[in-house]
Amino acid sequence: MINFQISPDQYKHWKLSFEGPVAQLTMDVQEDETLADGYKLKLNSYDLGVDIELADAIQRIRFEHPEVRAVVVTSLKPRIFCAGANIYMLGTSSHVFKVNFCKFTNETRCAIEDDSRHSGRRYLAALNGTASGGGYELAIACDEIYLVDDGNSAVSLPEVPLLGVLPGTGGLTRLVDKRKVRRDRADVFSTLAEGLKGKRAKEWGLIDDTFTTTKFQSSIDDRVAQIVSSRSEREKDFGESRLHRDGIPPLQGIKLNSLQVQSSQDTRDYKYVSLRFHRDKRYVDLIMRGPEVDLPSTTDEIQKLGDDYWPLRAYRELDDALLYLRVDEPEVGLVCIRTEGSIDNVLSVDKTLATNRENWLIREIVLQMARVLRRLDLTAKSFFSIIEPASCFAGNLFELLLASDRSYMLNNPDETVEIALSQLNTGAFPMSNGLTRLQSRFLAEPKKAYEAFAHEGRFDTSAAEAAGLVTFAPDDLDWDDEIRVAIEERTSLSPDALTGMEASLRFAGPETMDTKIYGRLTAWQNWIFQRPNAVGPNGALTNYGKPTQAQFDFKRT
Amino acid sequence: MINFQISPDQYKHWKLSFEGPVAQLTMDVQEDETLADGYKLKLNSYDLGVDIELADAIQRIRFEHPEVRAVVVTSLKPRIFCAGANIYMLGTSSHVFKVNFCKFTNETRCAIEDDSRHSGRRYLAALNGTASGGGYELAIACDEIYLVDDGNSAVSLPEVPLLGVLPGTGGLTRLVDKRKVRRDRADVFSTLAEGLKGKRAKEWGLIDDTFTTTKFQSSIDDRVAQIVSSRSEREKDFGESRLHRDGIPPLQGIKLNSLQVQSSQDTRDYKYVSLRFHRDKRYVDLIMRGPEVDLPSTTDEIQKLGDDYWPLRAYRELDDALLYLRVDEPEVGLVCIRTEGSIDNVLSVDKTLATNRENWLIREIVLQMARVLRRLDLTAKSFFSIIEPASCFAGNLFELLLASDRSYMLNNPDETVEIALSQLNTGAFPMSNGLTRLQSRFLAEPKKAYEAFAHEGRFDTSAAEAAGLVTFAPDDLDWDDEIRVAIEERTSLSPDALTGMEASLRFAGPETMDTKIYGRLTAWQNWIFQRPNAVGPNGALTNYGKPTQAQFDFKRT
Repeated sequence: MINFQISPDQYKHWKLSFEGPVAQLTMDVQEDETLADGYKLKLNSYDLGVDIELADAIQRIRFEHPEVRAVVVTSLKPRIFCAGANIYMLGTSSHVFKVNFCKFTNETRCAIEDDSRHSGRRYLAALNGTASGGGYELAIACDEIYLVDDGNSAVSLPEVPLLGVLPGTGGLTRLVDKRKVRRDRADVFSTLAEGLKGKRAKEWGLIDDTFTTTKFQSSIDDRVAQIVSSRSEREKDFGESRLHRDGIPPLQGIKLNSLQVQSSQDTRDYKYVSLRFHRDKRYVDLIMRGPEVDLPSTTDEIQKLGDDYWPLRAYRELDDALLYLRVDEPEVGLVCIRTEGSIDNVLSVDKTLATNRENWLIREIVLQMARVLRRLDLTAKSFFSIIEPASCFAGNLFELLLASDRSYMLNNPDETVEIALSQLNTGAFPMSNGLTRLQSRFLAEPKKAYEAFAHEGRFDTSAAEAAGLVTFAPDDLDWDDEIRVAIEERTSLSPDALTGMEASLRFAGPETMDTKIYGRLTAWQNWIFQRPNAVGPNGALTNYGKPTQAQFDFKRT
Repeated sequence: MINFQISPDQYKHWKLSFEGPVAQLTMDVQEDETLADGYKLKLNSYDLGVDIELADAIQRIRFEHPEVRAVVVTSLKPRIFCAGANIYMLGTSSHVFKVNFCKFTNETRCAIEDDSRHSGRRYLAALNGTASGGGYELAIACDEIYLVDDGNSAVSLPEVPLLGVLPGTGGLTRLVDKRKVRRDRADVFSTLAEGLKGKRAKEWGLIDDTFTTTKFQSSIDDRVAQIVSSRSEREKDFGESRLHRDGIPPLQGIKLNSLQVQSSQDTRDYKYVSLRFHRDKRYVDLIMRGPEVDLPSTTDEIQKLGDDYWPLRAYRELDDALLYLRVDEPEVGLVCIRTEGSIDNVLSVDKTLATNRENWLIREIVLQMARVLRRLDLTAKSFFSIIEPASCFAGNLFELLLASDRSYMLNNPDETVEIALSQLNTGAFPMSNGLTRLQSRFLAEPKKAYEAFAHEGRFDTSAAEAAGLVTFAPDDLDWDDEIRVAIEERTSLSPDALTGMEASLRFAGPETMDTKIYGRLTAWQNWIFQRPNAVGPNGALTNYGKPTQAQFDFKRT
């Protein structure tokens, strides 16, 4: 079982240090500390274990060190920044694992960009040596890239020429869409195993600047000092940065403790999230419990409560549960989402969050909830929401319903079955396509999204159905049968076809760099990872590092 | 060898008839008239041969019958409109063929939408019976869909539940992006083998209306009459429609004659396009010859010249050459584009086209050129443009250079090597992403696109390089070696990785429904078409129609 819970004192591959408003995130991969057997992590190459630490570090910077305004990502290895994902690890991994690994590393890169975009922190990739493949993809997720000019160091995406696969972490898309490199140059760069060094890399827009070895550190320091002392347009939105600079003591972060999980054969229980496995039927019930009554409503109290505050803890637990399901339960194809608790309590929490969104901690909490919901959107499993009495699909938890492929709401006039919206449904949790889930739902009739907001109070089943908020509303007599048959039907379908179908239907409307990376690149990567030219006995990935050469079937498809 | 040249007198599966401003396109597939052995085209199911006729019919309506304002697509088979792509044909086809087949049918659907969007013709799908799979995808490419309400007929996308693959012709994307069907309903519909009948299909937005059997024909007739007599905002742009309605004789179309091709072992020659194969090296030279001097400049003269007019003929030939390369030369991975002729002559033709774009024929010719260029963008082969003395990469032919993955321009001060822009490069040939190729090229520096337009006269090699219009400009001494090595390197790479890489790099910037269909859906489809759950011995596609049942590996990826 792969554990996604970690903390800096357990890091093997990264060092995270802080000095006032500057965080230093330094890669120093220990080649024998691998997640599986059969490969060594040479030259700062990485496996999932390395990336779990990175994801944790970024999360901790946001919650534990809100005073940080610049993050320098660099390496402790001489002349090498990072050699990318470990090829032997990829070569010995199953298709499922490879795809999940790429998805998680993509999400970590997107989390860097999310921090930069929404929390105003600036990420600098200080490439003290060569950055190849995933190493360059990590750099390109940062805001600025600086490469040492030592006559040797280069940036490269050697996947196509060396391995017969694509850069797996959004590299091609970020090349032309984020850095907007000219496509013919991107073509040359992506087929050049050795990559490009300082001068030409800068000319082509692959890096922002290059400095000689002797001037490298001081140039990075200068740039960091510039960032820390400047006040960008964006920063003006963030009161705390200003406070910090004006001599008022820096904000105190809150500590993220490891989540407590109890597992048995068929269960996995966190404080607010439970999984109940029906593995013979290939589905799982995911139960999310709403907040208790009377949670604090001031930011001081919430700061004191720290990571035990429901929105933060419950969504961290949901995040961990989703990652567990992806990586450790590949045969579970369907997640039935159920909620338990009081709608009033959820709405009360949402009110607190909405009222205090200017506070740094509340902002980080809401952004984290949004990221977890996007992780759900991007999970290759079917989701059904099941709405019964005593459930609390309200406000932020109503997003779970909207994120589901379908929803079933019990229609029983003798019981209270309700859902409700809150202010947070109007924009706090954007999907990867930039729209709210309600906007995505009502592309044909945008008016319906406004009507749902304008609705007074809760929706009972018939109101929810009339408003287009649920898919089906079976009555009491049919309920058990309908749910059972729906589950059976869903889990009988081809899991591959469902993955492709869901990825196509979930993201209607506009596209963003994120949806391109997940929807397009992932799909191509999935395909190429299956092809004999990559993974067959004569494939390039299989033959990497061996004396034998790859033999291709040259038919173009 | 598959022949993409056909004419209505040779149609086996479609009937095309005209009555004033209305065209009737009627499907009546002959089950034994297949393109290959091993399957029968029952229930109006189709193979590539059927779709080649459809593509031809749409093209002919545009050129030969400009008076047409409404196209009714229907079927002659009782109670069945179209059962979609033939499953046995798919089951017995190679992966390469399946992917190429889907791409061509997609392009045909996009050609319908192109006609509707740019030439103001309205397409009505008159579903006199069930439309399933590709049958419904054909309907959804039309502007309006009407389904007979006979108690049996339904629309459906049964690919996921029955075959373990995705609808291969943009069905899922058009469902949520064009018809904007709510995603949970799209999910239900796409997993329901039997589909949905009239009332609910209408309620869910899958069709526009449903009529009883007795009223079906008259209702379609009424709607057609309404279209023909109305004057939409869009139509106001099209003078000829107005002329027609006002009693002035309808426009005369021009006849599209079959292209003349001469082939030998290593060559394929049209009038303006030649292919020179180097199959041992897996590349082909594609030579496009520019127009002769003194082509007509008035629309009357051009109308008289008809399909022999250079822009129409040369691009029809290019289109046929691209289709031939895709389907019949899968092992040729690289196309070296060369042009021969006078830059002045190309610019003179472009001037005529730009001046007369309000004329229906000129408009159709330019739209056709744009479609062919998009076909090139979407071809899964590498393209290098090679610019030498006596070439004519100017105006519309400059788009070939921009569409290429790279370009090489000879740098020899002793010879004239030039390229040039024309007014048509500013918007006449949009890519699938909605941008011009120059805009796509200069996403990082939009100013450079303006500078290129503002440039006086032609660009010699150093000017072209300075303006960012070419990738490399080797000098005379290095030229032969550089080109040879570039070709050798390109053709040595994994063809799968190149396909994925090119698809990712060619379409930076915004996304449209078309790029979603090609970039995303195609990629997913490619993947699923390779998976054992679809095409393995126990896969759903393999087992379709057999007494055995598909056996899935249920791991979710």
